[in-house]
Amino acid sequence: MSRVRPFRYDREAGVFHLLDQRLLPMREVWVQARSAADAADAIRSMVVRGAPAIGVTAAYGMVLAQRRGEDLPTADHTLRQSRPTAVNLFYALDAMRPHWGDAKAMLRAAERVWSEVELTERAIGLHGAALLRGQVLTHCNTGPLATGGYGTALGAIVEAHRQGRVRHVWVDETRPYMQGTRLTTWELGRFGVPYTLITDSMAAWMMARGEVDAVIIGSDRMAMNGDFANKIGSYGLAVLARHHGIPFYTALPTTTVDPDLHSGADIPIEQRDADELRCFGEHRMAGPEVPVANPAFDITPHRLLTGIVTERGVLYPPFDEALRGALD
Amino acid sequence: MSRVRPFRYDREAGVFHLLDQRLLPMREVWVQARSAADAADAIRSMVVRGAPAIGVTAAYGMVLAQRRGEDLPTADHTLRQSRPTAVNLFYALDAMRPHWGDAKAMLRAAERVWSEVELTERAIGLHGAALLRGQVLTHCNTGPLATGGYGTALGAIVEAHRQGRVRHVWVDETRPYMQGTRLTTWELGRFGVPYTLITDSMAAWMMARGEVDAVIIGSDRMAMNGDFANKIGSYGLAVLARHHGIPFYTALPTTTVDPDLHSGADIPIEQRDADELRCFGEHRMAGPEVPVANPAFDITPHRLLTGIVTERGVLYPPFDEALRGALD
Repeated sequence: MSRVRPFRYDREAGVFHLLDQRLLPMREVWVQARSAADAADAIRSMVVRGAPAIGVTAAYGMVLAQRRGEDLPTADHTLRQSRPTAVNLFYALDAMRPHWGDAKAMLRAAERVWSEVELTERAIGLHGAALLRGQVLTHCNTGPLATGGYGTALGAIVEAHRQGRVRHVWVDETRPYMQGTRLTTWELGRFGVPYTLITDSMAAWMMARGEVDAVIIGSDRMAMNGDFANKIGSYGLAVLARHHGIPFYTALPTTTVDPDLHSGADIPIEQRDADELRCFGEHRMAGPEVPVANPAFDITPHRLLTGIVTERGVLYPPFDEALRGALD
Repeated sequence: MSRVRPFRYDREAGVFHLLDQRLLPMREVWVQARSAADAADAIRSMVVRGAPAIGVTAAYGMVLAQRRGEDLPTADHTLRQSRPTAVNLFYALDAMRPHWGDAKAMLRAAERVWSEVELTERAIGLHGAALLRGQVLTHCNTGPLATGGYGTALGAIVEAHRQGRVRHVWVDETRPYMQGTRLTTWELGRFGVPYTLITDSMAAWMMARGEVDAVIIGSDRMAMNGDFANKIGSYGLAVLARHHGIPFYTALPTTTVDPDLHSGADIPIEQRDADELRCFGEHRMAGPEVPVANPAFDITPHRLLTGIVTERGVLYPPFDEALRGALD
């Protein structure tokens, strides 16, 4: 399988190269990080995005800091401040800390952070692929660009295409930030998977025409009953899939399940900048006086889920039991 | 009630003034039509859009032609070619033809074309307003800009707000052409109706939160069984409304019902330019190689409709009987 990697580490030169995701798909520009501050800047400015990919970048940020003889507590602090809500960032930095001062051990630890992402997602992809066939619809971006590995939902789709099970993908453009248009189409193109870009509002119509055999998306955070937060628009897709009798899956590493959350009602919803709806780049469509709602996520209740794809296999209802078992 | 008019006729100067809808909401620029060719240009270039508004513009185009002593058959032909699929355009030009050569009678006929739009929509607004309360969600643009009158679905919303029945409107941005963002927000602002702009993908989430008491939209073409074509995204809203137990209405003049169509399966779906999804003004988000589906409309089956709002009252199931009665 051809690979798409959003970064690579040049050990000789001591440079961590990152594909600038802000410029995709129109330009493929690589940014060089030579210090922990450079790595933190890349995270903060969204050169790299997606929780697992941010974790890997932070781990290599510490490798760079060690190599250049930076003060490691300061480097660690700088990286922790870069995107304070990404839990993988903290996991990755915690995994580096026992090795501070030992350059070889730190490089091995960073490689381990990355390879754990890859192993987990390879398993997710294989478990998920077995569920898919024909035409699949997905939302937002859940591929290698978001994770540094194979991706979650998109990894399963790509694997299912490799196996000859899936022949075509409907890609929701994913308003307002357009992750589908900008990133998912680019990844599917690289993997040679046939796809068609649609507006989010077309998904229902494709379902009605019998052109969607399954929906599979990612998950930003899951409660212990299987309710989960994901990119705004996910909940609507779940309702539409149910109405049309189409299986609806989410794919995620078990680290995305938060054992402290009983149900989706406990998950806070981030509100993002109103100008994401009013403007497009330099192009303004509505004035600053126009009132806007811009929740980044919605919550899908577990009863709309057909199954949960994890690295430990596919979980089926009752999800509370299945999740307790998977997290044991 | 304050009025929003997308055009006005200056009888002294012989100028038909049109609000340039391509520049809204950021700029309010009026375009002057002094001849039938000017009016045809305004229609062709989308200065004015919406079937009823195009009809009124064409009628005044003939008034201008008569006033300037143009060859009337040529003027008529030029106007008929401007948007060959808009049925109101032909109705309006047919209504002018018996009066060719009589300047006063032509002006009266054009005024009648316009006032018929207003009378029909005033009745739609009053019938529709009685169905609405609390918070309403709408899609695309169905207001005065599209019709030259009070609007259809938006006319009902504005009237319901005037009566104190509706307190807030959720405006779908309406990808890909953004009629919600650009036109509906501008109209609601002019009428002083509180609203919030959302992406189309947020509608389901607002319904789940109990913040939508009714959905009302327009209709581009209706079959005799009540199935109807409307802006892409309408069908999904109908499914979502049904799932959440929310009433779902379409508002339309009875001239929108096509007696030759038995069901929605007979309605052809226009495919529009793929670049509407790939670009935003000058801002390109995806390359020309990205495959795109861009159906302008979808079909909502009559079984998802709570009622059909017409100038003759609200129709309820069985819709085939009710429509036969209304068209008699």
